[in-house]
Amino acid sequence: MINFAVIGAGRIGRIHAANVAESPACHIHSIVDPFPEAAAALATALNAKVSTVEDVLADPEIHAVVICTPTDTHCDLIERSARAGKAIFCEKPVDLDISRARDCAATVRETGVVCALGFNRRYDPTFNSLKQRIADGAIGATEQVIITSRDPSPPPAEYVKQSGGLFRDMMIHDLDMACWLLGEKPVEVYATGSCLVDPAIGEAGDIDSAMVILKTASGKICHINNSRRSVYGYDQRIEVFGSEGMVQAGNHKPSEVTVSNHQGVSQDQPEHFFLERYRQAYKIELQNFIDALVDGKQLLTNIDDGINALELADACVASMTTGKRITL
Amino acid sequence: MINFAVIGAGRIGRIHAANVAESPACHIHSIVDPFPEAAAALATALNAKVSTVEDVLADPEIHAVVICTPTDTHCDLIERSARAGKAIFCEKPVDLDISRARDCAATVRETGVVCALGFNRRYDPTFNSLKQRIADGAIGATEQVIITSRDPSPPPAEYVKQSGGLFRDMMIHDLDMACWLLGEKPVEVYATGSCLVDPAIGEAGDIDSAMVILKTASGKICHINNSRRSVYGYDQRIEVFGSEGMVQAGNHKPSEVTVSNHQGVSQDQPEHFFLERYRQAYKIELQNFIDALVDGKQLLTNIDDGINALELADACVASMTTGKRITL
Amino acid sequence: MINFAVIGAGRIGRIHAANVAESPACHIHSIVDPFPEAAAALATALNAKVSTVEDVLADPEIHAVVICTPTDTHCDLIERSARAGKAIFCEKPVDLDISRARDCAATVRETGVVCALGFNRRYDPTFNSLKQRIADGAIGATEQVIITSRDPSPPPAEYVKQSGGLFRDMMIHDLDMACWLLGEKPVEVYATGSCLVDPAIGEAGDIDSAMVILKTASGKICHINNSRRSVYGYDQRIEVFGSEGMVQAGNHKPSEVTVSNHQGVSQDQPEHFFLERYRQAYKIELQNFIDALVDGKQLLTNIDDGINALELADACVASMTTGKRITL
Amino acid sequence: MINFAVIGAGRIGRIHAANVAESPACHIHSIVDPFPEAAAALATALNAKVSTVEDVLADPEIHAVVICTPTDTHCDLIERSARAGKAIFCEKPVDLDISRARDCAATVRETGVVCALGFNRRYDPTFNSLKQRIADGAIGATEQVIITSRDPSPPPAEYVKQSGGLFRDMMIHDLDMACWLLGEKPVEVYATGSCLVDPAIGEAGDIDSAMVILKTASGKICHINNSRRSVYGYDQRIEVFGSEGMVQAGNHKPSEVTVSNHQGVSQDQPEHFFLERYRQAYKIELQNFIDALVDGKQLLTNIDDGINALELADACVASMTTGKRITL
Repeated sequence: MINFAVIGAGRIGRIHAANVAESPACHIHSIVDPFPEAAAALATALNAKVSTVEDVLADPEIHAVVICTPTDTHCDLIERSARAGKAIFCEKPVDLDISRARDCAATVRETGVVCALGFNRRYDPTFNSLKQRIADGAIGATEQVIITSRDPSPPPAEYVKQSGGLFRDMMIHDLDMACWLLGEKPVEVYATGSCLVDPAIGEAGDIDSAMVILKTASGKICHINNSRRSVYGYDQRIEVFGSEGMVQAGNHKPSEVTVSNHQGVSQDQPEHFFLERYRQAYKIELQNFIDALVDGKQLLTNIDDGINALELADACVASMTTGKRITL
Repeated sequence: MINFAVIGAGRIGRIHAANVAESPACHIHSIVDPFPEAAAALATALNAKVSTVEDVLADPEIHAVVICTPTDTHCDLIERSARAGKAIFCEKPVDLDISRARDCAATVRETGVVCALGFNRRYDPTFNSLKQRIADGAIGATEQVIITSRDPSPPPAEYVKQSGGLFRDMMIHDLDMACWLLGEKPVEVYATGSCLVDPAIGEAGDIDSAMVILKTASGKICHINNSRRSVYGYDQRIEVFGSEGMVQAGNHKPSEVTVSNHQGVSQDQPEHFFLERYRQAYKIELQNFIDALVDGKQLLTNIDDGINALELADACVASMTTGKRITL
Repeated sequence: MINFAVIGAGRIGRIHAANVAESPACHIHSIVDPFPEAAAALATALNAKVSTVEDVLADPEIHAVVICTPTDTHCDLIERSARAGKAIFCEKPVDLDISRARDCAATVRETGVVCALGFNRRYDPTFNSLKQRIADGAIGATEQVIITSRDPSPPPAEYVKQSGGLFRDMMIHDLDMACWLLGEKPVEVYATGSCLVDPAIGEAGDIDSAMVILKTASGKICHINNSRRSVYGYDQRIEVFGSEGMVQAGNHKPSEVTVSNHQGVSQDQPEHFFLERYRQAYKIELQNFIDALVDGKQLLTNIDDGINALELADACVASMTTGKRITL
Repeated sequence: MINFAVIGAGRIGRIHAANVAESPACHIHSIVDPFPEAAAALATALNAKVSTVEDVLADPEIHAVVICTPTDTHCDLIERSARAGKAIFCEKPVDLDISRARDCAATVRETGVVCALGFNRRYDPTFNSLKQRIADGAIGATEQVIITSRDPSPPPAEYVKQSGGLFRDMMIHDLDMACWLLGEKPVEVYATGSCLVDPAIGEAGDIDSAMVILKTASGKICHINNSRRSVYGYDQRIEVFGSEGMVQAGNHKPSEVTVSNHQGVSQDQPEHFFLERYRQAYKIELQNFIDALVDGKQLLTNIDDGINALELADACVASMTTGKRITL
């Protein structure tokens, strides 16, 4: 039985906790949260105890921690957990500052603990099916990748201010997917963006609409577009074009119902947001982490993927700021 | 805490048991199966004990039974459970003999126990979304219903022999859906069929391909088609046509991936069979039963629905045998 | 150069005339219509002369006639044209009375003239592609055929009264398609129907909603459904199910545009009615007739197809009237 | 009656000639081509005479010329035709050299003749339906445009050498569509590309795979991707994303047939190439030109559109060559 502590009992913490609790190999031992009510509510639901970071890290009965706290605490918690010998599952991003993130990754490497990073999309069955078709040769050699990623509604400007900006906060997922699908790290980055959705986001110094082009050393090219607001729901599509064909991952719908009437022929909007769209991905992601602990199975996403994606996000910021193509 | 006994530890019994076990309001107390290994395996997995029908019915700590045994034992187990005051969830069908089924329903009525029947499709989210659109007026008044239902591969002739035949074994689900969607009981039934898939099914006295037309007193018309073998997977579609439009429920796919290459533009086959296609329906079905026990919520499917569908199946058999339209 | 006379300058007459005129091998010589304005308008547009049936049939310069007059004149005009040695293209149906139609076919046979019947759907590229896939073995042996055919809006009751009824007037197209796709003539027919769309149609002695099941000698089964009113447009779909798969012909849309917004994800309604949906079929149909005249190419639809379909329509009427399955 | 001369009797010349010939308001008077056989064949088919550029321009009976000759002759023929007072329909592009093209446009302006440019895609019904939805407010304010344009197979390297390169030869269509859909001229251009399809294209100094990002003064952003080889057919898709939704134009298919079998659920590949995909657009384009001559209707595409698109293509070349964002 693997004993887990969940640090951060917010929305995503509760999801990960429930997924851990479903595994017969795991037990939720402790819940940590600065808000006692949040901690207590989750602890009660899962028959766990309320604890503190200090007690969790000092407790030899706890084997693994799931870190779901605000971004600016990630590196500190990762490093302390690594030094305490705990296996670590941490929500993305590692940090908004690349050198801080690199230091943290170095610490993880030194201690040799298992450390997974929560790039949930890599675990999604549809995206995995897409990647499998590519691996199976259905489209020949990959030449172009196009990633569309649009949130249903913009976050408050308050959130935007401390988010690191669209590229580090939102597109970082797509940049990770791009690396995963290209099979090579991009070496050229061009980014542009606008504030078209909410002027308050612009006043907060950020953009809400963005387009990027990446190019790899072998000449593969990749386009990513983002918007902070999609009135028809969470738009998460990927297209990979190759020498022998194209593979596309479409949106998921709540039902397979089609209505034909005076208004036209219509189907459901895409599933609303990430909690619905990636429900299964969150389960599989946690299971991958558990498999790494139980069977030594390889992690699909680790702290180095977080460093890579952050480097690309930083390059996007630099490109947009300077109006220049950035070479990595 | 509601204590459950599961009678029948086969494939569908294990699914229902797992769904009961997921509910925090329920506990799997006992497992009964003539094969001791099957009973023991499921009991161990769910931390339940192995028991017998007699002990289960005699045990006042057990509140509810889930009956997943062969069809010819359903009525006997329902009646004994009802007389023992247990709440009952029984897999369809009630029985292959309508008078036996009616006697059983009378017993249930007398004892007043809660008795749900496992017409799983009524719980499916896509079909419920379809029904909701109709209720919301998206298609006006219902005029025509078309139900397509095809299994991926035929059962062995041995199974066919004691199955009651295609209409009572397979189309009974579609006949129940027809009643649910028409909102009226059909009064005219015409059925025809052929043995086109497997000659052994014909030799066993059954058909493997069937078409039916139902008509209600108000003139609504409904078509159902069945095949025992669909090489592209489990085909489960419904179309409802009305005065203001049409609503269709399409098949579910394992992923939302589209491949475009030399061979064409292709998507996934439908999910393979009922265990995949109705995974969610099975969960919701059991939850509806639990809600009926906990909150007195109304059952979506009860033993009378089983009687209704069986009457229609019998009418189909009579129509095909005589070549005549049957009036109910 | 083949000289044509077009008898009947109404909507469908104008379409056929324009299609003939497009062929460099053909010339529209004369137009006949009881309404002089209609005849003159079409004649002027096509640089033809206004004429009479008598003059057309007597004129040795005219090689072919296109008959687009009311149904009750078809047999008379076919027979007179045949005796005058003209090649004949006649709109469906041959007649509403089967013995009259058979006499007419006998006359055609005796004279040996080329006589095509306007079952336009057999010429549609989508339906031909569907049939070609079957011929190419994409679905193995055909087992079930399902034909859905719904008009956008009901005809006036006045029209209904002299139409021969839904089966002879509307479903006759689908009955012809069924024969074409089954590759065998049905031997058992069951039909039912209701008046759900317009009470005036019921008062005129007809139905507006119908369902039929056909069965062939080898056991293939076919379902057809019709409605006189489909608010989302002309619904023309075919599904053929076989031992190795299924092939479906979907509706045609005016554009390939998809709109995703607050209301859902919607596409165009199907093309409005037969003039739009079968625009190409009408061209190909006339070309097939011209090819038969020029190159002796085989007709895709002749007067015998009209007899066959009418026999089935009569069987549908008999089945609905008597409530019995009809054996042919 | 408007008398036309068609200069250039190649593939696209024959299409335009046939579309002119279909109009009752027009007559094909003369055909000019350096290959006498090509000129004679088309002239015979259309009952026109074979002529020379000199005679055509000198003939006061000829009102309009359709120029379908190689690109390097366009400006000269436009200018001479303009000075001769002929209405002009010229295939794109105006020229590969922007200053030459501007001079030519100046001449056209001076003479005041009607001069249409063959950007066929603007006439396509699907793209017009997409644009109409935007105009109707279906997606609110336009924010992002994504254009995918892939040819079925690469041209020979010989062609590539004198084509002006991918941006001026192929993407110029997409750059024109971008301007049309954005409703504003882009002010920032970034382009990149690779030779991934055919090394001979790289040796000829060109690319075969390209991605571009455009940005307008108001902050709208647009992505275009191109490939010279798409094994699944001609891929021509447009997506426009706005404040209230998204509108997408999908590929056209030869039929609406779906096959479900062991291999999956598949539909037709897109129509093969531009002759099939834009068959209707070519008809409408010529009709627009004829309407401009007959009724003074406004041209949808004129020589200035050609200048605009060429400026953007030049900016793409400059961006790719320098690795810099180009500001217009």
